[in-house]
Amino acid sequence: MVCGIVGYIGDKQALPILIEGLKRLEYRGYDSAGVAVHNGHCINISKTKGRLTVLEQRIDPNQLQGTLGIGHTRWATHGEPSDINSHPHTNQSGEIAIVHNGIIENYMKLKDWLQKEGYVFVSETDTEVVAHLINYYYRGDLVEAVRNTLDKIEGSYALGVIAKDHPDCMVVARKDSPLVIGLGDGENYIASDIPAILKYTRRVYLLEYREIALIRRDAVEIIDQYGKKVQKEVFEVTWDVESAEKGGYQHFMIKEIHEEPKALRDTMASRIVDGKVNLSDLNVTREQLEKAGKIIIIACGTAYHAGVVGKYVIEKLARIPVDVEIASEFRYKDPLINEDNIVIIISQSGETADTLAAMRMCKKVGAKVIAITNVVGSTVSREADHVVYTWAGPEIAVASTKAYTTQLLCMYMMALDFADKMGRISADEYQRIIEEIRKLPELAQEILDDKEIIQRCADETFNASSIFYMGRGLDYAVAMEGSLKLKEISYIHSEAYAAGELKHGTIALIEEGTPVVALATQKGLFEKTLSNIKEVKARGAFVIAVAMEGDTEIEKEADRVIYIPRVYDILAPVLVVIPLQLYAYYVAVAKGCDVDKPRNLAKSVTVE
Amino acid sequence: MVCGIVGYIGDKQALPILIEGLKRLEYRGYDSAGVAVHNGHCINISKTKGRLTVLEQRIDPNQLQGTLGIGHTRWATHGEPSDINSHPHTNQSGEIAIVHNGIIENYMKLKDWLQKEGYVFVSETDTEVVAHLINYYYRGDLVEAVRNTLDKIEGSYALGVIAKDHPDCMVVARKDSPLVIGLGDGENYIASDIPAILKYTRRVYLLEYREIALIRRDAVEIIDQYGKKVQKEVFEVTWDVESAEKGGYQHFMIKEIHEEPKALRDTMASRIVDGKVNLSDLNVTREQLEKAGKIIIIACGTAYHAGVVGKYVIEKLARIPVDVEIASEFRYKDPLINEDNIVIIISQSGETADTLAAMRMCKKVGAKVIAITNVVGSTVSREADHVVYTWAGPEIAVASTKAYTTQLLCMYMMALDFADKMGRISADEYQRIIEEIRKLPELAQEILDDKEIIQRCADETFNASSIFYMGRGLDYAVAMEGSLKLKEISYIHSEAYAAGELKHGTIALIEEGTPVVALATQKGLFEKTLSNIKEVKARGAFVIAVAMEGDTEIEKEADRVIYIPRVYDILAPVLVVIPLQLYAYYVAVAKGCDVDKPRNLAKSVTVE
Repeated sequence: MVCGIVGYIGDKQALPILIEGLKRLEYRGYDSAGVAVHNGHCINISKTKGRLTVLEQRIDPNQLQGTLGIGHTRWATHGEPSDINSHPHTNQSGEIAIVHNGIIENYMKLKDWLQKEGYVFVSETDTEVVAHLINYYYRGDLVEAVRNTLDKIEGSYALGVIAKDHPDCMVVARKDSPLVIGLGDGENYIASDIPAILKYTRRVYLLEYREIALIRRDAVEIIDQYGKKVQKEVFEVTWDVESAEKGGYQHFMIKEIHEEPKALRDTMASRIVDGKVNLSDLNVTREQLEKAGKIIIIACGTAYHAGVVGKYVIEKLARIPVDVEIASEFRYKDPLINEDNIVIIISQSGETADTLAAMRMCKKVGAKVIAITNVVGSTVSREADHVVYTWAGPEIAVASTKAYTTQLLCMYMMALDFADKMGRISADEYQRIIEEIRKLPELAQEILDDKEIIQRCADETFNASSIFYMGRGLDYAVAMEGSLKLKEISYIHSEAYAAGELKHGTIALIEEGTPVVALATQKGLFEKTLSNIKEVKARGAFVIAVAMEGDTEIEKEADRVIYIPRVYDILAPVLVVIPLQLYAYYVAVAKGCDVDKPRNLAKSVTVE
Repeated sequence: MVCGIVGYIGDKQALPILIEGLKRLEYRGYDSAGVAVHNGHCINISKTKGRLTVLEQRIDPNQLQGTLGIGHTRWATHGEPSDINSHPHTNQSGEIAIVHNGIIENYMKLKDWLQKEGYVFVSETDTEVVAHLINYYYRGDLVEAVRNTLDKIEGSYALGVIAKDHPDCMVVARKDSPLVIGLGDGENYIASDIPAILKYTRRVYLLEYREIALIRRDAVEIIDQYGKKVQKEVFEVTWDVESAEKGGYQHFMIKEIHEEPKALRDTMASRIVDGKVNLSDLNVTREQLEKAGKIIIIACGTAYHAGVVGKYVIEKLARIPVDVEIASEFRYKDPLINEDNIVIIISQSGETADTLAAMRMCKKVGAKVIAITNVVGSTVSREADHVVYTWAGPEIAVASTKAYTTQLLCMYMMALDFADKMGRISADEYQRIIEEIRKLPELAQEILDDKEIIQRCADETFNASSIFYMGRGLDYAVAMEGSLKLKEISYIHSEAYAAGELKHGTIALIEEGTPVVALATQKGLFEKTLSNIKEVKARGAFVIAVAMEGDTEIEKEADRVIYIPRVYDILAPVLVVIPLQLYAYYVAVAKGCDVDKPRNLAKSVTVE
């Protein structure tokens, strides 16, 4: 599953710290939650299906006294959300309690075997086998028992373990799912994600692949999979915890949309210097680009949509072929890749499981891997050869907004840089694009300052059961992302189409009043898109068009028109997506949906 | 628009022949119909919105006496379906009548100008300008007037013209939209598609780009755009008209699904000889493949989905990179292509406008173009360097079925041939695949013989408002096509997803009872897909799985399982799609939809 983990050992009461930490993590998973606290004699557990508030209401703090504890929020994969499937899980005697993030792939086999050994299972989860296995191997040394257990299991995990016999320590381990250890003064923390413990400490150890740590209140001991001691450097977190708050907005999502101008500005600040893109730390040379043959962009979800734009602009400007691949497909298809290829990995969280796995495949082949990520210290950022950071700041809403626009910006900067190195762009064209890029934050602000028309469109259409998006070229790429936003938060079935493909089937779905969001910002394609608008209008569609200021011809065909400020059309996606994000947001609000935490979704998908 | 045209000149009454011909063409467009008949003195017209039966009921045959006439069925693009927008259109005096298939791109400009010249327009169509223009240029010579008119208009057309002053001839012309002239004995025909006149003649002239013909009852005179006389060869049609009938089935679609075993057998018959794929007429050499760098597959709609499978199998077997492109996107994107690339064009009808235009772009660059098409004599077949025919026979139902499976077969044969030439497949593997291909018709028949389970699944789910399809690898490619089928004929909003991508947003749409069709036929991906099934099940989905016989483990997770016969998994798409076609069909029937002629759709999309 995709879960949040938090843990504490020290001299304070663990429970409030666990709850506070889980609150920070709740955006990562929201179907159930639980805590286990060691009171010096035994372990007490409280867990429940539902939001964290449900757990808080149900907890009796008197029953959960103690200064050692672990907590968990769950996003179900194996077994539906229920009290019994919630974490922590224990062995039969309740003397070993664990929290787990990841998927145990061979759990069915292990479960069969343990059942034959007489172990009784109470949940449908994959996690429960881990608790029983630790019990099976336990001979007094908890670290040893965990190590033997990990040798048996296949899959991914971040694991937190406490035991009745050990009131003075917890054991943690990770493989493929993230885990950090927060260092305090006479106290220590664990978390699946830094924000959970940022209130308490800024000094952390980043646990690596198959490492195990024994954590006491005043000491942390880390070993690798072979039992060898590991010396860690302390990682200093420089983030501002305030920046992850909602401010004056109703939801994180709308706040984050309004942060896009700043995010764009911050992302270009260190990368556009003296009128030139500076990506010198990537060490990409003209020779490498020539030898590369192709660039492979790998990502999932919204980041994949940024990659689709990336393919378009890199091919257009630098004339280098680009394959853009869905990570979960790329991993399993015996891809055509060699050590000369350049790979670009895009992941907001830097922890997306499929993306990580695909990245490792590429590294194994020997290809150069460049990552675009929003999280400093994330696994992707550590394992890639080079990193281009999006400076979007923490993104809390599950539906990604400012991460996408800044990912686009990175794509443009890379395309420009590669085109320049390959000598395929004139100095004039280069300068023109740089100047237009610099205007983007300001133009994005203009859209945000004039959003009533978008809210009105949302009010007119939020009752629709299906909404279509269409566009050609770059407009099509952005349409995909606009459609995904709407799906994620409004639960309206929407779909994006290359406008010219509609008539090859999907136009059958258009009936009287079906909303169609038509993007028409690309110069050479404007007339063609207008024709497609006529086609859907002739079948009764209610057309909301997005076009550039001045292209008023479109008012004759569309029912509503949202204008974006004029910009060089290759850069339009950065602006076009903003009305689409706002539209999705206002539709979801009009429908009364839980915008920041849509059902069934997790912020960062750290399982496959 | 995408329309049907038919015309007659001879000694019989024209009206019954026009109506009969339009019936054969009705599947190409269905929102309105009309005829114009010359009675020796003047032209009488009857036209109406709606199906051909509406026209038949409205016609008074006494008002439409005559042995010269033209007819039309319309699929609206400019102007909604209405009596007034229906064809034929005339000049103001009603002395010139025309039928038109295509789009006049500069009609707005021409209309403005003609209005200034005093012409009064009655319809919203682009076509009407043509009638007025011919009037404008008419000085007694109808061919000359048409020629001058065609010099003025931009866009695509197949045109049929008759005039009061000329009771003894009709004038036709084409550019980009198909038109044939059927040769009789003392009588002649015109048609946008051969089946319309197959009952009367098998000898036709295929009109080419910008040719104009003057047709009398006993003579046909053809000139090119410069007025030069053209000598045509007679094309002998060998099709069986009976093969385009419904036989004992309720709809063409279900009939055509049942023809898949035969279509597969016919398509491989001439191409798999002595255990080897024979594509020697394509003249593809190892040197060419090595030099090619990449193969580009271009298509629209269902044919595009065949291309997606093609990319997968060619890359897998031959290890040559493949780009698969939507024709309407490829045309306008300044694509990376050079003269060494090999281009594969897929079009059932061979007349798909965007695909044709993309093909011409590729030819201009000098790339080698191989076409896969179902229609001998189609534009694609004539303009491509080489052709691989699917032997599916006429496909009448708008939703393509047997054309898709035979297109897949062509993709496999090409992948095998290329892999063999490149020395990238062992003799054993090659033989194994050949043997499995040969079994496909028989295995397809097994699915058809056991379709009750599919009908039951349809009965359980036809009320759904959204249905999702998911799969990994080749299963994902087939899922796209399965989803399109359902959309086209049942008007249910369905969408296909790479199973690993669902959780990056779309899973938010899954609620209690949402049907999910999960494909799990790919060996290495079975477990992963099972995990994804669990994820959607946990959120309430009703899962219909398609798996291979023997993989019964899936019954634990899915609500319903449809098994296909065991086959080498790379070939599974050919079989997997059949239950999906049947499912779409039965859902549409259960909903009472017009299966063969879904709303808003045309069989072959000969406009952009």
